[in-house]
Amino acid sequence: GTGASNDLYINQAVVFIEDAIQYRSINHRVDSRSLWLYRRYYSRTWQWILSLTITIILALAFIEKPSSLTITSDVRYRLPAWNPPCGLTESIELLCFLVFVVDVAVKSYLIGWEEFWKNKWLMAYILTLIVSLTDWTVSLSYFCTENVRIRRILRPFFLLQNSSMMKKTLKSINSTLPEMASVVLLLAVHLSLFTMFAMLLFARTKDGQQDKEWMRYFRNLPDSLTSLLVLLTTANNPDVMIPAYSKNRAYSIFFILFTVLGNLFLMNLLTAIIYNQFRGYLLKSVQSSLFRRRLGIRAAFEVLLSLKDTPANAQQSYVSVGALLQVLQKVEMDSRCKQAIMRSLKISSCDQLSATQFQKLFEELDKDAIKQHPPSPEYQSRFMQKMQFAFGHPYFGYLGNVVALANIVSICVVLVMDADKQPSERDDFFLGAINCFFILCYLLEMLLKILAMGLKRYLSYPSNRFDGLLTVILLVLEIATFAAYGFPHPGWRPEFMGLLSLWDMVRLVNMLIVFRFLRIIPNMKFMALVVTTLLDLVKNLRAFAGILVVVFYAFAITGIMLFKGAVVPLGNTRLNYIKKVVVVVVLYFKEKCDFMARSGRFQADAIYCLLRLLSVHLICRWAKIYFVAWWLISSVIWVNLFVALLLENFIHKWDRRCHREPLSDIEYQRTVELMFRDVLEEPTEEELMEKLHQHPHLQLCR
Amino acid sequence: GTGASNDLYINQAVVFIEDAIQYRSINHRVDSRSLWLYRRYYSRTWQWILSLTITIILALAFIEKPSSLTITSDVRYRLPAWNPPCGLTESIELLCFLVFVVDVAVKSYLIGWEEFWKNKWLMAYILTLIVSLTDWTVSLSYFCTENVRIRRILRPFFLLQNSSMMKKTLKSINSTLPEMASVVLLLAVHLSLFTMFAMLLFARTKDGQQDKEWMRYFRNLPDSLTSLLVLLTTANNPDVMIPAYSKNRAYSIFFILFTVLGNLFLMNLLTAIIYNQFRGYLLKSVQSSLFRRRLGIRAAFEVLLSLKDTPANAQQSYVSVGALLQVLQKVEMDSRCKQAIMRSLKISSCDQLSATQFQKLFEELDKDAIKQHPPSPEYQSRFMQKMQFAFGHPYFGYLGNVVALANIVSICVVLVMDADKQPSERDDFFLGAINCFFILCYLLEMLLKILAMGLKRYLSYPSNRFDGLLTVILLVLEIATFAAYGFPHPGWRPEFMGLLSLWDMVRLVNMLIVFRFLRIIPNMKFMALVVTTLLDLVKNLRAFAGILVVVFYAFAITGIMLFKGAVVPLGNTRLNYIKKVVVVVVLYFKEKCDFMARSGRFQADAIYCLLRLLSVHLICRWAKIYFVAWWLISSVIWVNLFVALLLENFIHKWDRRCHREPLSDIEYQRTVELMFRDVLEEPTEEELMEKLHQHPHLQLCR
Repeated sequence: GTGASNDLYINQAVVFIEDAIQYRSINHRVDSRSLWLYRRYYSRTWQWILSLTITIILALAFIEKPSSLTITSDVRYRLPAWNPPCGLTESIELLCFLVFVVDVAVKSYLIGWEEFWKNKWLMAYILTLIVSLTDWTVSLSYFCTENVRIRRILRPFFLLQNSSMMKKTLKSINSTLPEMASVVLLLAVHLSLFTMFAMLLFARTKDGQQDKEWMRYFRNLPDSLTSLLVLLTTANNPDVMIPAYSKNRAYSIFFILFTVLGNLFLMNLLTAIIYNQFRGYLLKSVQSSLFRRRLGIRAAFEVLLSLKDTPANAQQSYVSVGALLQVLQKVEMDSRCKQAIMRSLKISSCDQLSATQFQKLFEELDKDAIKQHPPSPEYQSRFMQKMQFAFGHPYFGYLGNVVALANIVSICVVLVMDADKQPSERDDFFLGAINCFFILCYLLEMLLKILAMGLKRYLSYPSNRFDGLLTVILLVLEIATFAAYGFPHPGWRPEFMGLLSLWDMVRLVNMLIVFRFLRIIPNMKFMALVVTTLLDLVKNLRAFAGILVVVFYAFAITGIMLFKGAVVPLGNTRLNYIKKVVVVVVLYFKEKCDFMARSGRFQADAIYCLLRLLSVHLICRWAKIYFVAWWLISSVIWVNLFVALLLENFIHKWDRRCHREPLSDIEYQRTVELMFRDVLEEPTEEELMEKLHQHPHLQLCR
Repeated sequence: GTGASNDLYINQAVVFIEDAIQYRSINHRVDSRSLWLYRRYYSRTWQWILSLTITIILALAFIEKPSSLTITSDVRYRLPAWNPPCGLTESIELLCFLVFVVDVAVKSYLIGWEEFWKNKWLMAYILTLIVSLTDWTVSLSYFCTENVRIRRILRPFFLLQNSSMMKKTLKSINSTLPEMASVVLLLAVHLSLFTMFAMLLFARTKDGQQDKEWMRYFRNLPDSLTSLLVLLTTANNPDVMIPAYSKNRAYSIFFILFTVLGNLFLMNLLTAIIYNQFRGYLLKSVQSSLFRRRLGIRAAFEVLLSLKDTPANAQQSYVSVGALLQVLQKVEMDSRCKQAIMRSLKISSCDQLSATQFQKLFEELDKDAIKQHPPSPEYQSRFMQKMQFAFGHPYFGYLGNVVALANIVSICVVLVMDADKQPSERDDFFLGAINCFFILCYLLEMLLKILAMGLKRYLSYPSNRFDGLLTVILLVLEIATFAAYGFPHPGWRPEFMGLLSLWDMVRLVNMLIVFRFLRIIPNMKFMALVVTTLLDLVKNLRAFAGILVVVFYAFAITGIMLFKGAVVPLGNTRLNYIKKVVVVVVLYFKEKCDFMARSGRFQADAIYCLLRLLSVHLICRWAKIYFVAWWLISSVIWVNLFVALLLENFIHKWDRRCHREPLSDIEYQRTVELMFRDVLEEPTEEELMEKLHQHPHLQLCR
């Protein structure tokens, strides 16, 4: 009947608008049941379950067999980590796989059969699930004693495929690969030519005393290659040239030439190439998001057109306001936006909406969320008004900063004075008294500010919230200290009581005070710019960070699998670090990789590993390849990507800063989309309609 | 008389056109005698004398008292360096100063009294000369035994003031300083807050076993600050955290946070800021050069106008072609350009030139120098024509590359096989025979190419010149080898003869063969792009390199003065590197600084010094400050400047690559000016005339 089909059109419009809000593609099934399923699938509950499942399956590595959940990382002292019984982690894994199976089934159904065959990500998803489940079966049939677990390396894929941002970023990185490969090839040519030069230059001589350089670094081809590769990371920088330089100063020319060409030119060339490739990256991705939004809105308009009975050949098509209100009631969206749209519908007071008017209504979605601070309270008495003026003035804030600085300086002085004292000689009275005094100052400052601004206005500023929260915590800690240890007096060093010793308590308070000092940041113009840039960057970097997690995870699991048997716990033997005993190196290596793998360590670690390991040739060839790959990916490529993004973000921000002055009392909640507002291109009507006619499941009436 | 004043006008025009060609300012005196002096001053001879003087005065450091002109740098083995007698370097210095005095006097006279007072560089020049001469007098009156020689630190100023490019670059760097200072301030805040955190976190505990971290790295405020500063250079990267990490894995969070914030964010922010500042730098400097050129041409036009007797109130002013020809004959310029201008003058065949026509004539100066390769010889016989086709074909060049590659591979194989052999077991027959064979191949290739292309055409390609030169050198070396040691045969290892042993001879030949392999570069498209970018960069970097030399020189001299007495030669004692004996470190330090100072070593060296020195606290506070300054300037700022320039150059180049395909047989000789041709703005007539009217010495008739 017409009622049922009208309901369908309304539901379609609702889903399309929700797609537009979330920047989703509209290419999915549009019949009633599919729409119901689609809304369930993208509901918060299911997406939350999916994220949780991904987190759980990734976190499994921490409690699985080669577990490192110990406090100390020192193999000599640490207790054997808890190993879960066979079947525990496996059953959790199975549950996760089942969720993924449901996920992939629903996803495949929703996009339809034809689209499915074009979607390589979905196929890879299914393949990964099949391989994982097979591996899981094998694992259980061996009672968890098998050596190789392929499914562990595949795990990060689940994280990857769930984020469209990450997939897009990966595509961008992928398109840069040819150029990166060219530079890496250049580096390889550079390395090999210089290796041949080195082998000819530092050949073995008849005089055994003279060929230290040959002995240590250029004994044979793999050695020479390794020496120069490590030189490229600058890890062995002057060491490698010292013997040759001692013999003849002119040898330094070789090393200088190698370093300048390799490090200064070729490495920075990589930065230039990556930056050049990523220059338009942010803009392009924001542009395509905008297109998706406009397309969703337009699709909603087109399906709402079908509701009407007017002939399709009318020059201009209109949608009734009533239908739109019906749709709006069903749509899940930010209540502020919804109210704004309702309001402008009422103001316009016309009964019919053209496509342009319809789009215009939803432009509310793109707008800055303007946050107005609540007003200060209005006091009657003259005295209170003066107080309000004095303590609401910015100078009062500056005074607070000066007090905080004074506190920092006093802590610093006490630390310097106490630096060399034995713990038994230390007197906590000074620090205790100082802390007590300053915390009272902070409390006073907070109260006076609340008095001047009113609680609501006070809390509406993030800097005040930061300040107030820390002040309250400090106050609580201080009261707890006094409750446990009494008031400070000279020679105030009572015995250990409660959770923390007095000394720890004082230290904790001091650390919080140092942390509170960060409140000065918004007061310094340049610092504020830097900090907002960094925060923006963190937002935009989520996709990159995700890919980094994927790479780290894969490397960590591979490392664990490759070097499983390499650790020999040594008991309490005094380890001679210098003589490079085999065991120490192996131990060190496990230590590093373990650590690097689990806690997401910074790339310098890998370089360090490279230096320590590659130069002593104790670990097998696999370690070399593993670490060179690690260095290339995490240190060279990822850091350059990061620099490229930082340059992009910072330069945009910098240019914008000159354009407009921030308004005094209004805070903008900026998003990447808004940053590029003025350079974005609106899609044309033709582009939108062409895309709509290509929709695999939607038949438009005109 | 009119003749004399006409001569003056002609001479003025000549000088203005020469100014335009050299992109010089035209604000100098314009009377006859000054013009004569001006042309002498900017003649090649005088500029060459000036450059030579600057080189000599800078090079004096190498032979002056703490001389390092020894082959080995090892203090234990090296002979005492030759010290020049008192008065030798001093008298050379005096000669240089006299040249500078003449230079500054002429320069000051030429720009005139009024301009002189505005020119801070000239005043600084005079001041430097006065201080240097005073210091020189003091030095001689003490018979060269005085301790401090200020004039040595001032020497690089002479290099700086002689180059307008360097002065311009310095101005640019200067304008970036406020922002750089902000980031450095941020870094300082970051460092000090984390230092306080670290001191509170890693405080001394009552259990002596547990506080290794405190003991080694955070004993007191200077120690903590140093530890974290060195961590910022990543030199002590995992070492500094290992004790804390061994105790509790969670401590790593502190170090990760510090490194990520400091290294990844703040350091790269510096790159972003410097890049942002330098983005327009090249363009701006090229734009101002263009203005100077147009202004010079216009000034020449205006003075030539004064030659004529036509009334000044005519609407359009014209210059006669005859006068221009007279001027052109006197101007010193590239003969190709001169001929091109003469030719277009003849073609136009009009008698009078307007200002626009005049400018247009000289646009020849801006054009690409198009280089046409001479034609191949035309052979009569059919056979020769076929030969010419075969050996002139690009595939023949590729075949040559394959042969070169085969040679490289064969050398590599022999090297790998011989790697572990004793020198006495080695047989030079294989390498000798292989070299002999391949050198004959190269000779054949060269001859066939010359046959196909003709000698002139062959030599007109730079790649062929490179190839041919190396082939000839190889041939000469090979003939010399055979003359000295006979033809190769199994067991070919005769005794040492002549200048080099057979083994050294063979090694030298092999190195040249490896070097010759670089001929493949132009055949690989991406490599060619990279190499041309690098060559361009080297051209544009001259100013930066000059400033770097200035900084290095000043640092080196300061270092020598600060740490003069710190070296104690140790004789043949076996040095225990590991136990960090004081003397070793001091020795090492002298070694480094000496080396770094003299041979312009790369910044990693400084970081290494920093690590080795700052972490052991053996050298006095001066060393710390010296090295931190060195690290900041050479490693942080200069490298970032370099990256900024590389990005700028590479991105321009990359964009251009997409625009046009290089023509097959024509080579452009590109300059920076040409790179920006399409974005440069021509100065307007009004701007030029306004500038001309501001000329301090030229009175225009209209």
